[in-house]
Amino acid sequence: MTVNTDGLSAQRIAQAVTDRKLSALDATEAALARIAAHDSVLNSFTDITADRARATTKAIDAKIAAGQKVGPLAGVPFAVKNLFDVKGLATRAGSKINRDLALSSRDATLIERMEAAGAVLVGALNMGEYAYDFTGENVHDGPSRNPHDPTRMSGGSSGGSGSAVGGALVPIALGSDTNGSIRVPSSFCGVFGLKPTYGRLSRARSFPFVASLDHLGPFARNVSDLALAYDAMQGPDADDAACTTRPVEPVTSMLAEGIDGLRVAVAGGYFQRNVFPEAVEAVSRVAKALDATTKVEIPEAARARAAAYVITTTEGASLHLDRLRKRPNDFDPAVRDRLIAGAMVPAPLVDRAQKFRRWYRAKVLELFKSVDVIIAPATPCVAPKLGQVNFVLDGVELPVRANIGIHTQPISFIGLPVVAVPVPLEPMPIGVQIIAAPWREDIALRVAHALEQMGVAAAPPPRGLSRGL
Amino acid sequence: MTVNTDGLSAQRIAQAVTDRKLSALDATEAALARIAAHDSVLNSFTDITADRARATTKAIDAKIAAGQKVGPLAGVPFAVKNLFDVKGLATRAGSKINRDLALSSRDATLIERMEAAGAVLVGALNMGEYAYDFTGENVHDGPSRNPHDPTRMSGGSSGGSGSAVGGALVPIALGSDTNGSIRVPSSFCGVFGLKPTYGRLSRARSFPFVASLDHLGPFARNVSDLALAYDAMQGPDADDAACTTRPVEPVTSMLAEGIDGLRVAVAGGYFQRNVFPEAVEAVSRVAKALDATTKVEIPEAARARAAAYVITTTEGASLHLDRLRKRPNDFDPAVRDRLIAGAMVPAPLVDRAQKFRRWYRAKVLELFKSVDVIIAPATPCVAPKLGQVNFVLDGVELPVRANIGIHTQPISFIGLPVVAVPVPLEPMPIGVQIIAAPWREDIALRVAHALEQMGVAAAPPPRGLSRGL
Repeated sequence: MTVNTDGLSAQRIAQAVTDRKLSALDATEAALARIAAHDSVLNSFTDITADRARATTKAIDAKIAAGQKVGPLAGVPFAVKNLFDVKGLATRAGSKINRDLALSSRDATLIERMEAAGAVLVGALNMGEYAYDFTGENVHDGPSRNPHDPTRMSGGSSGGSGSAVGGALVPIALGSDTNGSIRVPSSFCGVFGLKPTYGRLSRARSFPFVASLDHLGPFARNVSDLALAYDAMQGPDADDAACTTRPVEPVTSMLAEGIDGLRVAVAGGYFQRNVFPEAVEAVSRVAKALDATTKVEIPEAARARAAAYVITTTEGASLHLDRLRKRPNDFDPAVRDRLIAGAMVPAPLVDRAQKFRRWYRAKVLELFKSVDVIIAPATPCVAPKLGQVNFVLDGVELPVRANIGIHTQPISFIGLPVVAVPVPLEPMPIGVQIIAAPWREDIALRVAHALEQMGVAAAPPPRGLSRGL
Repeated sequence: MTVNTDGLSAQRIAQAVTDRKLSALDATEAALARIAAHDSVLNSFTDITADRARATTKAIDAKIAAGQKVGPLAGVPFAVKNLFDVKGLATRAGSKINRDLALSSRDATLIERMEAAGAVLVGALNMGEYAYDFTGENVHDGPSRNPHDPTRMSGGSSGGSGSAVGGALVPIALGSDTNGSIRVPSSFCGVFGLKPTYGRLSRARSFPFVASLDHLGPFARNVSDLALAYDAMQGPDADDAACTTRPVEPVTSMLAEGIDGLRVAVAGGYFQRNVFPEAVEAVSRVAKALDATTKVEIPEAARARAAAYVITTTEGASLHLDRLRKRPNDFDPAVRDRLIAGAMVPAPLVDRAQKFRRWYRAKVLELFKSVDVIIAPATPCVAPKLGQVNFVLDGVELPVRANIGIHTQPISFIGLPVVAVPVPLEPMPIGVQIIAAPWREDIALRVAHALEQMGVAAAPPPRGLSRGL
């Protein structure tokens, strides 16, 4: 049992554990040691569930010793954004207020499914308050930091998830994405992230934000691990009304099918504006590798983003109205003020945003009759410095916080599946969105896998930490 | 061809036409003559489509002469609330502003279906502006009047529909019901009205009000006619997204099945408060006839009504926002001011109303596990005098306009099917709601039919007009 798991993929850890070359306990202890060594820099974890993790590994190791079958993630350490219910913890969702909630009596569905596949939960991860964030900053817990440069943002709101996987503390983390909260930290931290189709993965027993926009999904350092986690979590769940129809459609075995015949197009117009040179370069590399010479125009993307904003701020305000009334001073001020603004938006604007949304969805689905995949930037730039307030986009000085999601919001607004792939530019990586039609995660993952095989997409080693991999 | 069709049922007109005892043309001319004689009092029609009607009858009579099959409504004159598209007319929806719309190029789906069954459209009917009304008053067209006392309200917003059928000008009319606009005029005018399950009848090519609350449905002077019209109009329609799933489930032939074994309960609590003695008397007669000795408590009915209000006013405001901005002075002031108020309601209130709605729907559906039918008042009182502003409900002086729908709103809020049956009290009739579980119009219609057989429910002759039937 001398396998060094630092930087090892989930797949190889599980293989080593299944082959008895590594115990699940040792794999977990190694992850706990990495966290202990490096999380003082990254600040990606808010809770370490070491006792629970050790207990889980014992059951796995006992099964293996008894010759029983274990799952495809046997012994793989993972962690979850702290808006997932974890039995015995209060689901803080990045807030101070939620720490007063009752302790969860049951894990979120996705944790149950990961553990059913053999994975081992080692902790809960830092995040922007109530998921209303693109920076990874948090006034209560401090910011999670970028593993490639700890003076930079991890991205939000699943900042701890991006940071922990980008820093190779764990091979897999789970996060949530309402307007970009998986894709943005994937881009900034240089990892792969999957925002599945709306309704694909159960959100049962996670803290919500905007019911019609919330998605949960995995982060990983390679596409095979991303697909393994995704496959482990798929399937209907009566506890989430949006997740009751789709059967399990495993994709892990399809990754190697290649991408011959897939029609790939680059998103033009809106998605080619509002970008820094690094985003142009990353999209260009991906487009070239995929031989994507056509462009598609996603119609009214700016309006889609505006509509996503209106729906987000008003539904968020509705969700938090009682807390805003009773404990306004316990909110992160940047979150509170936007929610208070949302509480005063006139309802007809939201009705019109929802009507537009139906129109827009139909228009975008039309595009997928002539293309299979659309490429777009995941973020307009590499990770900004922590605390940076403004940047200049297309000659206009704009607030960073509000505009990091400029390219993600129009996509999640209608629930399309996206794999964010990291392009390892120097000195900082940046992500590209691989967007497919609803329920076609398989296509987006196959394209991501092909880009990885070609060396265009890769999770770089965490150069901001005092070790290699 | 000497059949007198005054007061004749649709069924008997169709039979006489089919049997060649009456021509479709004569049936229509008789209706046009009744309209000419009495609508100066009732003011129920805004448009008479005499030429079209005559052309339609010629085709029917030619078919019959040729020995071809005609539909179950052959030669039956009918009219529609003026929010249905009628080819060649502007769909005014009770407004002044809409008269500037382009003329409709195609009839509403329900008109097409009625005519496919042999019915003959003779005109369009007065209504409250943009259907935002319970009185039947209209500042542009004048009020439609109650056929039993022309100094009284017809009820709204389908006031012309109630008035025209209550006055026996036509045996069948169509209307719409968002918060009570079929059931209220049925109650005031003493006729039968069906508000079907949400999604049952197509709303294609009708002017909307609140998408998630709008229902279209028929008025008639007896239950067989109501069922005939309903059966003629049923069936999916790709042009109304809410009406695509239910097949045709004819009920006309089921009416005689009786009501043995049906569990009938009276709505308690909220539905027994806020009533005048006549409503108590009407419900009591119906309950006694149906041997309904149990009560059910519809939970949180007052909140349901409040939520229906919030959704109505804000979605209505969204629909009319551009008109409110451009032509505020062309609105009925009573409608305009409520829409302007709706334009300023904060969105989180609506989000919470929608969340409550899901909870409430589940709770009410639970009740239908132990009962088949629920009885409740259709209106708190008989038709008030035109122009009456206030009335006293349970000791509190309240505005008439806002409170006529106090018992209808909590039912339509979750789309339950209701037959409003007229109880012929003296001097004015009043309606009772026969409420069934979703998609069980058959049950509500069977109960209404049984009440008619027992003489408890009946459309009284229009004593306010200078003739009998």
